[in-house]
Amino acid sequence: MSELERALAAIHALGEPDAGAIAAARAHLDALTKPPGSLGRLEELVEQLAGITGDPAPRVDHPAIVVAAGDHGVARHGVSAYPPEVTAQMVANFVAGGAAINALAGGIGADVVVVDVGVAGAVPDGDPDTAHARLLRRRVRDGTADFTAGPAMRREDAEAAIEAGIEVARDVAADGAGIVGVGEMGIGNTTAASAVASVLTGFAPDAVTGLGTGVDAEGRQRKVRAIERAIAVNAPDRLDPVGVLAAVGGLEIACLTGVILGAAAARIPVVLDGFITGAAALVACDLAPGLPDRLIAAHRSPEPGHAIVLNRLGLRPLLELELRLGEGSGAALAIGLLQAAARVRDGMATFDDAGVSGPA
Amino acid sequence: MSELERALAAIHALGEPDAGAIAAARAHLDALTKPPGSLGRLEELVEQLAGITGDPAPRVDHPAIVVAAGDHGVARHGVSAYPPEVTAQMVANFVAGGAAINALAGGIGADVVVVDVGVAGAVPDGDPDTAHARLLRRRVRDGTADFTAGPAMRREDAEAAIEAGIEVARDVAADGAGIVGVGEMGIGNTTAASAVASVLTGFAPDAVTGLGTGVDAEGRQRKVRAIERAIAVNAPDRLDPVGVLAAVGGLEIACLTGVILGAAAARIPVVLDGFITGAAALVACDLAPGLPDRLIAAHRSPEPGHAIVLNRLGLRPLLELELRLGEGSGAALAIGLLQAAARVRDGMATFDDAGVSGPA
Repeated sequence: MSELERALAAIHALGEPDAGAIAAARAHLDALTKPPGSLGRLEELVEQLAGITGDPAPRVDHPAIVVAAGDHGVARHGVSAYPPEVTAQMVANFVAGGAAINALAGGIGADVVVVDVGVAGAVPDGDPDTAHARLLRRRVRDGTADFTAGPAMRREDAEAAIEAGIEVARDVAADGAGIVGVGEMGIGNTTAASAVASVLTGFAPDAVTGLGTGVDAEGRQRKVRAIERAIAVNAPDRLDPVGVLAAVGGLEIACLTGVILGAAAARIPVVLDGFITGAAALVACDLAPGLPDRLIAAHRSPEPGHAIVLNRLGLRPLLELELRLGEGSGAALAIGLLQAAARVRDGMATFDDAGVSGPA
Repeated sequence: MSELERALAAIHALGEPDAGAIAAARAHLDALTKPPGSLGRLEELVEQLAGITGDPAPRVDHPAIVVAAGDHGVARHGVSAYPPEVTAQMVANFVAGGAAINALAGGIGADVVVVDVGVAGAVPDGDPDTAHARLLRRRVRDGTADFTAGPAMRREDAEAAIEAGIEVARDVAADGAGIVGVGEMGIGNTTAASAVASVLTGFAPDAVTGLGTGVDAEGRQRKVRAIERAIAVNAPDRLDPVGVLAAVGGLEIACLTGVILGAAAARIPVVLDGFITGAAALVACDLAPGLPDRLIAAHRSPEPGHAIVLNRLGLRPLLELELRLGEGSGAALAIGLLQAAARVRDGMATFDDAGVSGPA
């Protein structure tokens, strides 16, 4: 049995979220000095976390943000506003603590774990004494091939990247993470995510392709054409999600599919970030039915494919702040809301304790 | 010159938000290692705070949540799911630290300042050694009169409640608050807020009246009828906002109008909470043109009047989480987002510092 098969079997064995834990969480929330349900989605989140973890008062302590990084052969077609070397430069920036995700992770007390699963260039170690992120070297290959001319990678590469992600999730779980946010870095990766989303949802490339981190209308047309060519050349089978990743995906997308599956298997709630993590979740959910109940959508970005993916997964985003950075930035903000929900659950008096009258 | 006139003159003297500070904030944000604007509304918030405060790197340290409390004569008409004594009980709960706002304020390092501007019953001091909120006794009268039979209060009472709020804002500013969130407690106050919103926006009572913290459809009909009667009996003049407060408002709503005006006059950004604080802001903005630029709408609640009020003010809410608690709970969550925005602004490396390439 492969790592992937073990993770899928573990998720299958979990079955439905824990109804007893959900009911206990609900009963506690209703005893607190506030009208029942008046904290809206914060209360729903407490119930969801209880169902996932089986704990009526689940901890959201020790969050981990896993940022998977990979390069994309398709970047040579002018699909990004940035040159490909930025992927490696930003990985170094994560380790040095200068990126947005470092600032946002600091606000929620999260560890940042960066996985080089497929960067093309050299990634220096950085200064271990001042590192602001843990760098895991799990490189499967030096970026993907240009998927307009053939598959992005071999099937074995996609499987290896998924399994790297499952192992990262296991490590993070062993370190005591109560919640995992996922993020990514990879110049060109909105193009790969749009290709995966197009194949798996059946929407046309044009419908799921946006401006990414900042191309213009012409750049968007180049993205659409590259995806159309990739699908024509590789003819991915939408009933074979791993094959789709190999044909038109990316190494960081495959790795995040593994992180999502591995965390879910360990009963750790997973907070998705933007469109690229949504594409990884789409693959994971095709592999593991019932998985969406274990996921939280942090936000909805302006990428048109993101709304399509979230609808397909049946996930309602918590935030809509026009975020289009990636790195797990939206996941970090959403974990802040989850921590606020946990504070409410743990910090409030009950009607009885406080001597407050209930409904008349 | 009254306190109110002084505050309005001070706001008028401020003029437009500081364009130089906004431009400096924008330039700094664009130098950071992320695509320009990719953090969406977080970046817009940094600019807005810069414009309000005149500081390109405004602090959101030492937040204060001001919770104004008052009772409502209209509560006798079955417009709330809770009995009127809950107002005083919840004030005691705020001081004892058992309410949702205490838990949420803890998460953002905020002081909770509770203003008894019009509670009807006795409010005990609580134990000063363990107080989780500062209780300010500024009671103008013991709740409002039943506004279905005459004015809620005298004009002098409304003015006194507004001036109490202005003074509270001045105290909070003197204590070094970098940002002020507003909240409220008052059984029956969604009915008063709907009445104020109906008069000032011109929408019918039925259009701006919802289920509050938990009445049923019949309860909502009682609210609508009470508001219709109040408007018929008192015939408030929509061009006289203070008169509207006196006729169909509430003491805590008037006090929050003062807090909003006082904080704006001191160049402190104000974060609105739900519908009732929105009604207070509507009055404040009718008194002080240009004020909406100095306000941040934390969230949009399910109350139908809230969306109408926010549209009228031209404010886009940051969150939409189905919150309907009040107390400043949504404001506290939004201040968490503002703190995250400030962390990004202060904590990130620039492209030059980090050796990251810009757009190709």
